[in-house]
Amino acid sequence: MEKIKPRTLSGFMELLPPQQVYFDTMARKLRESFSLYGFTPLDTPLMEAAEILLAKGGGETDKQIYTLRKSDTELALRYELTASLAKYVALNYGRLTFPFRRYEIGKVYRGERAQRGRYREFYQADIDIIGDGELDLLNEAEIPGVIYKCFTSLGLEQFVIHINNRKTLSGFFEIIGVGGAATEVMRVVDKLHKIGAEKLTAVFTDDLGLSKTQAEEIIGFVTFQGDPFEVLDKYKGKNSMFDLGAEELAAVKKHVAGLGVPDSHFEIDLSIARGLDYYTGTVYETIMTNHQGVGSVCSGGRYDNLAEYYIDRKMPGVGISIGLTRLFSVLTDNDLLNKSILTAPADALIIPMTGDLSHSVALAASMREAGIRVQIHAEDKKIKSKVFYADKLGIPFVVFLGEDELRSGTVTVKELSTGVQTTAAAGILTAGISEKVKALRSGAPIKEM
Amino acid sequence: MEKIKPRTLSGFMELLPPQQVYFDTMARKLRESFSLYGFTPLDTPLMEAAEILLAKGGGETDKQIYTLRKSDTELALRYELTASLAKYVALNYGRLTFPFRRYEIGKVYRGERAQRGRYREFYQADIDIIGDGELDLLNEAEIPGVIYKCFTSLGLEQFVIHINNRKTLSGFFEIIGVGGAATEVMRVVDKLHKIGAEKLTAVFTDDLGLSKTQAEEIIGFVTFQGDPFEVLDKYKGKNSMFDLGAEELAAVKKHVAGLGVPDSHFEIDLSIARGLDYYTGTVYETIMTNHQGVGSVCSGGRYDNLAEYYIDRKMPGVGISIGLTRLFSVLTDNDLLNKSILTAPADALIIPMTGDLSHSVALAASMREAGIRVQIHAEDKKIKSKVFYADKLGIPFVVFLGEDELRSGTVTVKELSTGVQTTAAAGILTAGISEKVKALRSGAPIKEM
Repeated sequence: MEKIKPRTLSGFMELLPPQQVYFDTMARKLRESFSLYGFTPLDTPLMEAAEILLAKGGGETDKQIYTLRKSDTELALRYELTASLAKYVALNYGRLTFPFRRYEIGKVYRGERAQRGRYREFYQADIDIIGDGELDLLNEAEIPGVIYKCFTSLGLEQFVIHINNRKTLSGFFEIIGVGGAATEVMRVVDKLHKIGAEKLTAVFTDDLGLSKTQAEEIIGFVTFQGDPFEVLDKYKGKNSMFDLGAEELAAVKKHVAGLGVPDSHFEIDLSIARGLDYYTGTVYETIMTNHQGVGSVCSGGRYDNLAEYYIDRKMPGVGISIGLTRLFSVLTDNDLLNKSILTAPADALIIPMTGDLSHSVALAASMREAGIRVQIHAEDKKIKSKVFYADKLGIPFVVFLGEDELRSGTVTVKELSTGVQTTAAAGILTAGISEKVKALRSGAPIKEM
Repeated sequence: MEKIKPRTLSGFMELLPPQQVYFDTMARKLRESFSLYGFTPLDTPLMEAAEILLAKGGGETDKQIYTLRKSDTELALRYELTASLAKYVALNYGRLTFPFRRYEIGKVYRGERAQRGRYREFYQADIDIIGDGELDLLNEAEIPGVIYKCFTSLGLEQFVIHINNRKTLSGFFEIIGVGGAATEVMRVVDKLHKIGAEKLTAVFTDDLGLSKTQAEEIIGFVTFQGDPFEVLDKYKGKNSMFDLGAEELAAVKKHVAGLGVPDSHFEIDLSIARGLDYYTGTVYETIMTNHQGVGSVCSGGRYDNLAEYYIDRKMPGVGISIGLTRLFSVLTDNDLLNKSILTAPADALIIPMTGDLSHSVALAASMREAGIRVQIHAEDKKIKSKVFYADKLGIPFVVFLGEDELRSGTVTVKELSTGVQTTAAAGILTAGISEKVKALRSGAPIKEM
């Protein structure tokens, strides 16, 4: 028979078993963190009628969408999770209770040119809080609380959540007389950390036609070193939107601290603009301080109208997205996965040493009953090769069951990391394994140097 | 602005929040059960190069596959999980350790005509054990153990795992002289429970050209009432494959019982054929005894060559698949979801009764620290409407924090199911909530009448 060459498409992450365990642990930690803040899980289809995903329309995204056709319907694979949420909320408006807090961790698809760090299939982990008509500012303050909980529960320590408010930025642009070009100016400011202040000034004056004074004033505002409320005070009383934004920033700062986020892990950063028009209030970016080149690993903000393509009702919201696949790839590349957690498929491997397997089967049943993950190695192999199997997979305990053990009603357990071998009643050894394994399993998936 | 009508494609299951919690709980219980038997999680791409998914080729499936094209590559969405596993094992052969036990719970796609109970996007939950060259029979005996663990941990009680062996069936066909037509006969036997013995006889004689005696002998064999080993004994010694199959069935029966599966929940059933050529040893079907019309909710079997399209190495395996979306839909239709488990997004809702939200924020932080899922309702609404919000979502506890409480250093907690309201120190009430919620959360997702 002619063979096919097995391959996985480029841009599609497919992990080996130990890496998959890290990835799944990360996803679980995120779910737990989202749940503590009262977010409910959703799992929307990966495929939608094309008009749903193209509702927002325009630009680069359209070209990247995978489309397909079945019968008469134009179908598409989702390229992010927000469009599906908007449809879901519009479709189920009468059956949902608002404010509606949901999380979704799911795959999205982008037919990009594959390159390092770019994926065509990748996970996003999103949370959003959707209000019906109105949504209190406290929701915006809770978002950095969730982000902090998420990243610390993953084991990350070196990160800072940058917080700004689009109202202060928009207000500021009006104050210095560039309000008409606010959208374009916002997009340029968003590039500050990529291209630097000097180039930014050039773009302002040469491309957007701002005066040198205006350009300098913007640069001075967004790169201000020191307490940002000092510079906010300086412009106070000149524009009501600006003043409201400054007040919101102060309230958000207070509540973020109240939620237990230490000063070291968040800062008001007047340079955070987020490119999209979409945002109208608090905006967020999260930077890994030891890996700043990676850019923001968790971003989002407040928006005014989630479902405007579907319904007239105003549905303001606030949300963030974690690019989980991308984050995982950064962590792997930088060797930040915690080597001391258990990635083996089992906690114990039973090696039967008698022809009759009944005793091994009974032992496996009782160990599993105690919550221990067990494999029985019944293949026709030498004992040495079975121990090697456990070692290679990182299974911490090997259990031998031979004639001696059967006669004395015991089992022999070897802990592979220490080489210590103990013979005792099964119940006693099971309890010991259970306890050690619990400790091994409970570690965080990430460990920074 | 012209509005778009929000819609979800037909054949795509999209759940409301409480239903999603049931579904997620089921998936979690399956993951835990698979893990106890030493299966490691995998998550393969939903999209593959078309040639990978079409490797098996032919028949109805090809027509149902969603295909798409990007640049020069013909792509397809997976329609089951086994093709991806075969590719994965062939691609990573040198990096995996065998026997290799993996589970995958993932979405698959079939462009079928949508009809009740048929989905175009649905979850399959698969486990497989893959050997390198050989695979001991004990692995076949462990599968009903996992199935039993899965279904009981979901809360299902009324089910029976039917077990047969393709070797006995094939051997039997040789004994009665229909060995040449074994594949067709097998496919017809598979329909016994759908069309009944009478029609089966007609198909055997009229369509397959079997003699009346042969047809009757098959019917007698597969519908035998009583201990199946009696009828197996009757044909013993006439065909070596048959004898091997009978021995395997006896050993499997012994070990399945040894794994703790009660007699009431499994039976050797000589009529189980499974349609596919693929299977060569033990085969399984799982029937919900109160809902037999649904057919098998978990099926599979032993096969000889997982990766034959890719590599020459013989890789025998055994596996099963649970159609999770379909199972969920049957459970929902039959009202079998356990109403006493907690499906609310939060365990407690804090209702601030002072203008300054700081105290509510601090309380939320400390409750979350204790593992309680908390929302703060800070919207500009009446207290009554906030309590109604909790009630509608099924949030069990409401926490009031007003001037009185702040002065006395207490909080007031109301348990909505009983109406009992208590004022005490926050720490004491938090411990009480924590305990009650743990009990509410730990229930099984299914409850039969």
